[in-house]
Amino acid sequence: MSALEHILEANARFAEGYTMGELPPQPRQRVAILACMDARIDPPRALGLEPGDAHIIRNAGGRVVEALRSLAISQQLLGTEEVIIIHHTRCGMQTFTDQDIRQRLRQNLNANADHIAFLPFTDQEQAIQDDVHTYHESPIVRHDVPVYGLIYEVETGRLRRVV
Amino acid sequence: MSALEHILEANARFAEGYTMGELPPQPRQRVAILACMDARIDPPRALGLEPGDAHIIRNAGGRVVEALRSLAISQQLLGTEEVIIIHHTRCGMQTFTDQDIRQRLRQNLNANADHIAFLPFTDQEQAIQDDVHTYHESPIVRHDVPVYGLIYEVETGRLRRVV
Repeated sequence: MSALEHILEANARFAEGYTMGELPPQPRQRVAILACMDARIDPPRALGLEPGDAHIIRNAGGRVVEALRSLAISQQLLGTEEVIIIHHTRCGMQTFTDQDIRQRLRQNLNANADHIAFLPFTDQEQAIQDDVHTYHESPIVRHDVPVYGLIYEVETGRLRRVV
Repeated sequence: MSALEHILEANARFAEGYTMGELPPQPRQRVAILACMDARIDPPRALGLEPGDAHIIRNAGGRVVEALRSLAISQQLLGTEEVIIIHHTRCGMQTFTDQDIRQRLRQNLNANADHIAFLPFTDQEQAIQDDVHTYHESPIVRHDVPVYGLIYEVETGRLRRVV
């Protein structure tokens, strides 16, 4: 069974008990959360969030530079006033370099990706600090709101605040 | 209470019952899902996914052009072989234009965002088709894997396949 079939079956059951049709688009807790796409992390579950509570932005590594468009929209159009950036331990982004993935893309897809920064990192504490810094350097996001940098431990499920 | 305090409290309770410390980083269902950051959507819950099942990428609108880096990493480093792109009804991206948000950013933050495409859209069916098309046009993602385009109805919780 493909993932799509599994998902459509599960969604049909989910829709039967659905009661959230009237939620507004503005996040109730006025917060935007940025996290990694990692399969082991389920932000609503790990962070105690209900549908309607928060914008959740996710990309490989939870990197801010690729989330600025979404954060600007979240703040300017939908009223969020707090930003929480979450990286995590054992992140796949610590297992390769730009050189590695460019080589794979050339070998596997005959693609030239030399112009793309894939944003891997080596030092975890540095990376979350760098991402908070990237936020503060951007002119298109608010600088009068709190911005936090956290690390989620996939070993324990625990969040640790770094910034 | 700020969202951060709420989240740290909820996370402490979550971590007490945590048993997923040994999950591998490779998604069990070998699928990458791209969805909107919208607060009303909880992909694992609506799609029947467990921690470890799927990469979940999210941005404003669920737009592919900003997810290609993450998708390439998902496929080349972590072995996903299926792509599901999900837009949704009543999306905030249908409520503004580039001109609108650029004006707000200039007024509110004194920021020039004239060089940034914020990727709003008007026609929902067209937008999901455009995003599947953007995927197929990219040289850095696999073209030997299934790619689906779905719309999630926030009114009913139901997924509808478009592509």
